[in-house]
Amino acid sequence: MPRKPLALPRLNRQSRVPLQDQLAIQLKQAIQSGTLKAGESLPSSRDLASELGVSRNTAIAACDRLLGEGYVESEPRSGIRVSREFKPAEFRPALAKFPPHAIARKPAFSTRLDGPRPFRPCQPDVKLFPLALWNRLRNQATRRLGEGLLHYQSRHALGLPVLRRELAGYLGASRGVRCEWEQIAITTGSQQALYLLSQLLLKPGARVFQEDPGYPGARRAFQSSGARLKGLAVDIEGAIPSPHPRPAALVYCTPSRQFPTGATMPVARRMALLEFARRCNAWLVEDDYDSEFRYAGPPLPCLQSLDPAGRVIHIGSMSKTLIPSLRIGYVVLPKELVEPFELLRLVADDHGPLIDQAALAAFVSTGGFYSHIRRCRKSYAAKLACFLEATKTHDLPLDFPFPDGGMNQTGYFREPVGSVTSLALELEREGLDVPTTASYLINARRKIRPALVFGFSAFDPAEIRRGIALTARAIQAVRAKTPVR
Amino acid sequence: MPRKPLALPRLNRQSRVPLQDQLAIQLKQAIQSGTLKAGESLPSSRDLASELGVSRNTAIAACDRLLGEGYVESEPRSGIRVSREFKPAEFRPALAKFPPHAIARKPAFSTRLDGPRPFRPCQPDVKLFPLALWNRLRNQATRRLGEGLLHYQSRHALGLPVLRRELAGYLGASRGVRCEWEQIAITTGSQQALYLLSQLLLKPGARVFQEDPGYPGARRAFQSSGARLKGLAVDIEGAIPSPHPRPAALVYCTPSRQFPTGATMPVARRMALLEFARRCNAWLVEDDYDSEFRYAGPPLPCLQSLDPAGRVIHIGSMSKTLIPSLRIGYVVLPKELVEPFELLRLVADDHGPLIDQAALAAFVSTGGFYSHIRRCRKSYAAKLACFLEATKTHDLPLDFPFPDGGMNQTGYFREPVGSVTSLALELEREGLDVPTTASYLINARRKIRPALVFGFSAFDPAEIRRGIALTARAIQAVRAKTPVR
Repeated sequence: MPRKPLALPRLNRQSRVPLQDQLAIQLKQAIQSGTLKAGESLPSSRDLASELGVSRNTAIAACDRLLGEGYVESEPRSGIRVSREFKPAEFRPALAKFPPHAIARKPAFSTRLDGPRPFRPCQPDVKLFPLALWNRLRNQATRRLGEGLLHYQSRHALGLPVLRRELAGYLGASRGVRCEWEQIAITTGSQQALYLLSQLLLKPGARVFQEDPGYPGARRAFQSSGARLKGLAVDIEGAIPSPHPRPAALVYCTPSRQFPTGATMPVARRMALLEFARRCNAWLVEDDYDSEFRYAGPPLPCLQSLDPAGRVIHIGSMSKTLIPSLRIGYVVLPKELVEPFELLRLVADDHGPLIDQAALAAFVSTGGFYSHIRRCRKSYAAKLACFLEATKTHDLPLDFPFPDGGMNQTGYFREPVGSVTSLALELEREGLDVPTTASYLINARRKIRPALVFGFSAFDPAEIRRGIALTARAIQAVRAKTPVR
Repeated sequence: MPRKPLALPRLNRQSRVPLQDQLAIQLKQAIQSGTLKAGESLPSSRDLASELGVSRNTAIAACDRLLGEGYVESEPRSGIRVSREFKPAEFRPALAKFPPHAIARKPAFSTRLDGPRPFRPCQPDVKLFPLALWNRLRNQATRRLGEGLLHYQSRHALGLPVLRRELAGYLGASRGVRCEWEQIAITTGSQQALYLLSQLLLKPGARVFQEDPGYPGARRAFQSSGARLKGLAVDIEGAIPSPHPRPAALVYCTPSRQFPTGATMPVARRMALLEFARRCNAWLVEDDYDSEFRYAGPPLPCLQSLDPAGRVIHIGSMSKTLIPSLRIGYVVLPKELVEPFELLRLVADDHGPLIDQAALAAFVSTGGFYSHIRRCRKSYAAKLACFLEATKTHDLPLDFPFPDGGMNQTGYFREPVGSVTSLALELEREGLDVPTTASYLINARRKIRPALVFGFSAFDPAEIRRGIALTARAIQAVRAKTPVR
């Protein structure tokens, strides 16, 4: 059998690895990768030595090792050949318990850093963020706290105590949250809080009640623990507690502004939801993702403040109030969950980045945080007015029943419009990003009134007006295709 | 039954919550918290109204609601009382599948930011980190990349492409890692890489082989998925592949410098370990945690470079080369794991902080990273020399068999010293932090040669000399208590 040239890479004479080991490794790689196939002859040790410029002893030693390890076999008078039993690696061990591709969808590939397109929901206006001030606060913090801020701080897996204290004060004053500062855990965003809670509280097969339509980030976190999701229907008061409570591990809701409908839950419904969670013997997760942004009147008391039993877990995020790329969120834990959460966090990623935590503590304590929220609220209120006016100017056939807050407005079609999903695709072709409420359904067969979700907070007035004009045109185009009934 | 005063908080007349709802909520809270006990009488609606300064209709409406919800019951001529069936909340739903307290231990409480005490292992010298330069790189990055760096970037759950490209170049040149840049995932430290891999690859009950003694962070990550850990004994060449390979999900090792013994795995052992993993049909996780720090000769080729089958998962950390509090690590994934890892990361915490990622990319591309490593290597080599000299000056009865690299030195007792665990406790009382190798055992009954692990990289010469003097004294004290044989 004629021998093809092997084309081995050159050996590295500067390396600490002996030449014979290098040669043996390269030959094995050629065998493992299939370059040298089962039954194929190897060059003689003499040929190997001259081809690579090594001594013949080196070549013999390398071949001996391959013989000893069973990669090659020797035959009298015909030299050595790759073992006929050798099969190149076919290595495909199984993946995890709840395969990620069943939970999440891979975002489209891009190496660029893109900003959101209009009207992507839940996007803050990052231009409002005082980056220069923030960097000054970072520098002051590192000067003041010194090296401690640079070391491992596994004792502070739940976050810097100074920040947790500041947040306890803020949440007590603004949201009525009742807690000790030790109950507050800083996370790298609300998604981490949801994921760690699902790891902590959900056994595979556990029942979870969630608003339907509801927030997909929460759904994915629960599914990653193998939970069985049960949808709670949503009306203009938010999630409707099921009249048939059943044992469940967790109930998830967004009472201050239901995602994606925008409904604010009145106090009576809040009490009913607490009662429902009590009957299910479930934890109640309150995701308070954008409660800072109300443009009329103060916010309602959060669920956590209405619950003396310690059943409510209150989650918030700085991705909306500050900027997403900081990756800071928080969770207010019932006392008995504090230590389990801390231990899990240590295992999951030890602790979060500390310099930004220190900067945030200073931002809150010096009042910069509050002025920033006021500035955002003012700006978003103006954008909301611009948005609503544009929908009137362009005569959008949509009702916006909750025009009082948030970063998004959900528009309900006054009359049938054909396929709202094709409309969303049409808007995507126009460069817009306007999801349907139906795209947030857990139970895809649930009948809901057709609606589109418009985020307005990240976009300037010109973008908003242009986006609404495009939307109006797309709706007319889809309507023209719909047969008149 | 005489009525005690109720001491309800004042009602908020500015609130959007109707007064009758506020009153009902407060009464429920008093019942749920046990302030009002089962069978206890409530004040009459007339008394409530006058006590709180509300109309009698408001008080009646609140009581009606409590009646409707079953919190209270009404009896002819004796008013209303708390339902005799009502029991205050005793709310203790079950926790997770693998309770965190079984995996990790809560660190001692402190609100301070402490630096490490001598000789805590694996601690970089944070004073060497060029913080001012780093902040300049951050500012340049935010100016250059603009708002994109502040938004959500879920497309970049695996990290900024510019950083992944730079790391692919660095790892190829310095470690021989063979990969496309798309195979590199940025994590918030190597702990997150270990945790997400355990979530991805380990079913409950899965077999995992790990060096014993070995790294506890890895052990906890695997245990959090319910894996069954099997220890691999360790000798001066690192992990010893078991002669009896059995099906396993994962093999974990630290070949460039075994933690905690400090042994470097020679190439022949690396090949044997790869073969062992192949026979187990297991993934092979190579934790390359401090390979930058070798003070004599170039490092050996990493396991990943020796494995054409795509079985090796290579993990590294910037916590050692830069500073821990940045929380940046990376993992080089086999191609088939890239997408599952990305999807899981999106569910776990969306993506990491971006400004520091951009700064690190610039730090590598402008060469600052390489000069920083050189500076650290020089400083740590000097500290190592100082450390070893101090052990001689104070005549420590320990052998240090691997004095050629790393951030730690493991000292083996030349002769029996009584209980090495009591010695470690004695050192702790002296303000030192010197773990025993036995404290890193998976199988606590495994017999290993008594040894102490000294980290030297974070401490200055005076601290090192003082710490060694204290260690020498403590060893003598423990020896004096040990009966002569």
